[in-house]
Amino acid sequence: MIQQTLRPLTEPRRMVLFAADHGVVAEGVSAWPAEVTALMIDNIRSGGAASSVLAVRSGTELRLIDVGSLSIEQAMENRSPGVIYRHQRLRAGSRNLYREAALSPQEFESALQIGRDEAALAAADGMAVVACGEMGIGNTTAAACLTMLLADVALDQAVGRGAGADDVAMGVKRKVVNAAVRRARDMRSASSPAAMASIAGFEIVAMAGFMLGANAAGLTIVLDGYIATAAALIAGRLCPDCTGSMIASHVSAEAGHSAALAALELEPFLNWELRLGEGTGALLLMPLLDAAAAICGQMRSLAELGIAPEAAR
Amino acid sequence: MIQQTLRPLTEPRRMVLFAADHGVVAEGVSAWPAEVTALMIDNIRSGGAASSVLAVRSGTELRLIDVGSLSIEQAMENRSPGVIYRHQRLRAGSRNLYREAALSPQEFESALQIGRDEAALAAADGMAVVACGEMGIGNTTAAACLTMLLADVALDQAVGRGAGADDVAMGVKRKVVNAAVRRARDMRSASSPAAMASIAGFEIVAMAGFMLGANAAGLTIVLDGYIATAAALIAGRLCPDCTGSMIASHVSAEAGHSAALAALELEPFLNWELRLGEGTGALLLMPLLDAAAAICGQMRSLAELGIAPEAAR
Repeated sequence: MIQQTLRPLTEPRRMVLFAADHGVVAEGVSAWPAEVTALMIDNIRSGGAASSVLAVRSGTELRLIDVGSLSIEQAMENRSPGVIYRHQRLRAGSRNLYREAALSPQEFESALQIGRDEAALAAADGMAVVACGEMGIGNTTAAACLTMLLADVALDQAVGRGAGADDVAMGVKRKVVNAAVRRARDMRSASSPAAMASIAGFEIVAMAGFMLGANAAGLTIVLDGYIATAAALIAGRLCPDCTGSMIASHVSAEAGHSAALAALELEPFLNWELRLGEGTGALLLMPLLDAAAAICGQMRSLAELGIAPEAAR
Repeated sequence: MIQQTLRPLTEPRRMVLFAADHGVVAEGVSAWPAEVTALMIDNIRSGGAASSVLAVRSGTELRLIDVGSLSIEQAMENRSPGVIYRHQRLRAGSRNLYREAALSPQEFESALQIGRDEAALAAADGMAVVACGEMGIGNTTAAACLTMLLADVALDQAVGRGAGADDVAMGVKRKVVNAAVRRARDMRSASSPAAMASIAGFEIVAMAGFMLGANAAGLTIVLDGYIATAAALIAGRLCPDCTGSMIASHVSAEAGHSAALAALELEPFLNWELRLGEGTGALLLMPLLDAAAAICGQMRSLAELGIAPEAAR
């Protein structure tokens, strides 16, 4: 349907991971300290992360763009031949969305543009299918805010345990999300870029830009989990048509994810209670897209077998 | 868990398809005439079936064993280099299970043995993972009988549309299944081989034998759809431990399938409303098993990254 053909292409394909940190981690919303973002960036670059493993296994090119982490490392060289790394840091983490706007409208536009540029590069490189994913401690808090604001989901459904928040952190997370969304709803237009920017994160906005660019370039987009779907909500607000280019890979253990997918009118293929991020759900779907394309391209039809439709009662 | 290791193997692997016809088709239970079984055997052998395509795509060896079709062709040569074909026909189709016992106890034992022999061959050939599937017009009727008898499922849940039965055929199918199961339940032991044989089919019993043999050889077994799961119910009745070697690939559009899987205490990975048979659901799962094995074998743990468990709140 997306490619308007009965011989869809699923290769070549690319996963672009966007990484950033979140000022709101200072409130205690996450089970992990912000330093884990940098460690995971390093791990992805070295080929040891789940996304690195699944990208190799599924024959998917992997790129990692640091759009706003706290990482102290500035080195540009690539660690692993399998992963392209780019440093395009707009800021050392977003601001604390509980206390102030996480991103300015200008930062929102800059992050969108980084994503759009990545999509244009994917198209220029001849990709048929693209996906994006993320790394950023604290980003389920921003995703919960965006899902509440843009998919009209209730607080208790939008806020989940992310990467393992305990009951204390969950209480903080609910308080933080509720306050930030109320502030965004009080803005002149609740779905303006400024309102979305105030509760987002650099990697989420970059993913939204990537989806907008990929849709404009006619690429097929495979969605990942809760945070990538929050980015799809932003993209869908900026360009309603773009969700027509999206395939939902999975519905995660975060309760808000199914509501966000429903708002986008997308039906997920896998329901495995994943909660890892890094594009891992999208990467798991890739071989299944290959299987579907192989069926379309190679299976003999009943007519080709000489079985007439009248044979069926 | 099945392989008792943190470094599971998912290759090499083999799908064995068992094909047979069903005398009960004479009652009008199926949307398709029995001749389609022979056409599909031919199609699988020539590489044009869904299972042929998915086997190649997923790197799974494919074997096709005719244990009881009405096919007039006796030729033993292989048509496609990708598919091994064996002719081990025990009878030209089962008897009409509505009128009499479909298989005799001796035929039941012979079909089991064909399956066991295939499993022993798979083990001797060094397979780590095996699956079995089926081709046989009318076989959802036998599967419905077995699911009612062995998983204690109600008639209306056990009987589904199979490969597209219309309302008339559905009425016949319910009448036929109800009568055959009542007759089986009236036998001295309702879960005796004789009772199971009376409502089964050659390919279903061969699959049960395959599962018993694979379990005995320590192989990991991937289940396919409703009919393969009916075979697993037989295998589980003959050897309760053997279900511990099974992975459920999917739950199909046939309502009885989820009940049968629940009776086996197996949870399916895919819920795509498939209803094609031929082992296609199991073949779709293969690359996802590869992904899981790659994660187990190659992903770096938090400890390896220097992130202590105490880092998490």
